[in-house]
Amino acid sequence: MKKKAVILFSGGLDSTTCLAVAKDQGYECYTLNFDYGQKHRAEIKNAKKLAQEMEVSCHETVQLSIGRLGGSALTDDSIAVPDYTGDNKIPTTYVPARNTTFLSIGLGWDEILEADAVFIGVSAVDYSGYPDCRPEYIAAFQKLANLATKAGVEGSPIKIETPLLQINKAETIKLDTSLGVDYAKTITCYRATDDGLACNQCDSCELRKKGFSEAGVADPTQYI
Amino acid sequence: MKKKAVILFSGGLDSTTCLAVAKDQGYECYTLNFDYGQKHRAEIKNAKKLAQEMEVSCHETVQLSIGRLGGSALTDDSIAVPDYTGDNKIPTTYVPARNTTFLSIGLGWDEILEADAVFIGVSAVDYSGYPDCRPEYIAAFQKLANLATKAGVEGSPIKIETPLLQINKAETIKLDTSLGVDYAKTITCYRATDDGLACNQCDSCELRKKGFSEAGVADPTQYI
Repeated sequence: MKKKAVILFSGGLDSTTCLAVAKDQGYECYTLNFDYGQKHRAEIKNAKKLAQEMEVSCHETVQLSIGRLGGSALTDDSIAVPDYTGDNKIPTTYVPARNTTFLSIGLGWDEILEADAVFIGVSAVDYSGYPDCRPEYIAAFQKLANLATKAGVEGSPIKIETPLLQINKAETIKLDTSLGVDYAKTITCYRATDDGLACNQCDSCELRKKGFSEAGVADPTQYI
Repeated sequence: MKKKAVILFSGGLDSTTCLAVAKDQGYECYTLNFDYGQKHRAEIKNAKKLAQEMEVSCHETVQLSIGRLGGSALTDDSIAVPDYTGDNKIPTTYVPARNTTFLSIGLGWDEILEADAVFIGVSAVDYSGYPDCRPEYIAAFQKLANLATKAGVEGSPIKIETPLLQINKAETIKLDTSLGVDYAKTITCYRATDDGLACNQCDSCELRKKGFSEAGVADPTQYI
């Protein structure tokens, strides 16, 4: 039987790379996107379209109304998405406990599917200073997953897979190239328009642009 | 400043006890309920009403469409909620990774509120055999919370509080009595009617009934 994986999938550069890696490793792929009240609504439609183009077995968009709890520039209308600053502080785009919540739901779907792994595209190298992108965080989630699930209790724990954890954006882009990912179809921007045009000023745009530049690859992103 | 806590709150016996304990300990309380596609819809309205009667600072119902992923008798129309069996297997009412997901969202709200604790009414004594009710699971989630959050990184981690972890249902009911909880207003049943009547046959009903009996307290539950 082919092994199965759930991919936390926003249709951005990182999660699309994760999907390509999982496919390349022979997994049957199930992509999971979240409508959590993010302002960049283009993500939801694009993730679905891209997942279908990449021939996943199933794509799900889970409704998750955490945006109304506020607390992040990505969801709260009273906090503007900031321009890139380059400092090391946790930025206002941080969504409290978002990766933990997404991983938990991914873990649940994995149990239902009797799947083997959850892929998440976090990187501890080129990232925005979020605490839930660090290797020690992922290790702690793996321990939790082993204890939390029927699969774990029964001796076949679900693996948390983080193929991008130790590589930077330029290396991610090189990996994409080798796997044949059409990164022109990915949307990364926190302020993406409904048509998927990028702002060229937020953290996400800046890290992505730097990645293409360092990788020596022409940036296919369409900016406003 | 008064300390704050998020209470994972279904309006059942256990989470209502948690709320009463948190209030008794001087917390300003924020109750969090989930509409995750559960068949026992009575929970949602009852939780809101009871939270308001118990004068919480804020009650939120988060929409979380994990029910459509299937996999549990509590959410999946193709799986009937079973009668109580008393064996030690993980029952079909288990919702994969539910506590992990609920705790994660509670943790996120806690960060937003700059609160001190998340209360969850799990018990490792009288429970239905779910892996995510065990002390080692809670300890692993606490470790994760310390690493996952801005609060944890900045040295003031959010505490996962489980006042019922080591007590049985009868002791929970005695605790309720001492704290003045009106347990007649709580709904526990997995097959509760829209009017909140209990089925008297499912796991939850059985454990609750046994608790009242062992505590020597008249069972106020209204059965079908």
